[in-house]
Amino acid sequence: MIEVEVKARAPPGIEEKIAGLGGARTGAEVHLDLYFGSRSRNFAETDEALRIRIKEAGAFLTYKGPKLDPETKSRREVTVQVDDPHNLESILESLGFFRAAVVKKRRTKYSLGRATLCLDEVEGLGSFLEVELSGGEVWEEEKRAALEVLARLGISESIRKSYLELLAER
Amino acid sequence: MIEVEVKARAPPGIEEKIAGLGGARTGAEVHLDLYFGSRSRNFAETDEALRIRIKEAGAFLTYKGPKLDPETKSRREVTVQVDDPHNLESILESLGFFRAAVVKKRRTKYSLGRATLCLDEVEGLGSFLEVELSGGEVWEEEKRAALEVLARLGISESIRKSYLELLAER
Repeated sequence: MIEVEVKARAPPGIEEKIAGLGGARTGAEVHLDLYFGSRSRNFAETDEALRIRIKEAGAFLTYKGPKLDPETKSRREVTVQVDDPHNLESILESLGFFRAAVVKKRRTKYSLGRATLCLDEVEGLGSFLEVELSGGEVWEEEKRAALEVLARLGISESIRKSYLELLAER
Repeated sequence: MIEVEVKARAPPGIEEKIAGLGGARTGAEVHLDLYFGSRSRNFAETDEALRIRIKEAGAFLTYKGPKLDPETKSRREVTVQVDDPHNLESILESLGFFRAAVVKKRRTKYSLGRATLCLDEVEGLGSFLEVELSGGEVWEEEKRAALEVLARLGISESIRKSYLELLAER
């Protein structure tokens, strides 16, 4: 599945702006994200990511492929739910992966048309908004829709860096 | 967890012998086992294994470490259940692993004291019996108990090779 995604720093009053566009709050989650590196491949260079996400609904393993276009942070994403994140981490470590970083955030989700908006309070980084749509083999329309949501919220500058990269830059 | 395991070719009449020792049949399963290789490590040389097992109860990812002693095929084993084996295979492939072999078998399980006996009909290989006990950091007692079960069943020769290795030798 192609995850079409744009991200930006959240300006003040963003919740009201989302509500003003008709966005509906659909839930809130706390994420503990464990990012892994590989002893045989430099994920920062290959622009890949391997993550265990632990949240109330369960634990999930996600692989993200390299970004697919220059304007957004759209990527191929594959996820499976697992019953035990500690055993999964033990398997990953045995296979040559290592815990590279931990990102903790509080995510509030909104639904707006076909888009999902995620307002993230990231520990140590501040507030961000991600606009996500799922796309097929051709995702031009989804890309346009995601960028349009940002524009309608009065946001002109998007960020292509991951929280992981932003944390590394501090 | 240390999985203490001995394996042997199953002689004729093994079911009756197991019943004669007081073994109780606890169930039967069909396993489709997908074994993976790694582009960065030769699991045959490192004596490791990475497997997705698909059975009626669900899909499971298992890592097995190198064998720990010269008499049995005891190893460190770590398993997680996953909700989607196809997505898991897609993640493994993205990370540099590839499907190396498929083993299909019908397993009948018996309980005998602290041991689990697995009578396996392996497609293309024939009938085998595995005697399994779970051990802690020291597993001498479990090893002795597993070998004793084989002896009480009149089996003198055990095999340390995996089904994967046996299939590769054909």
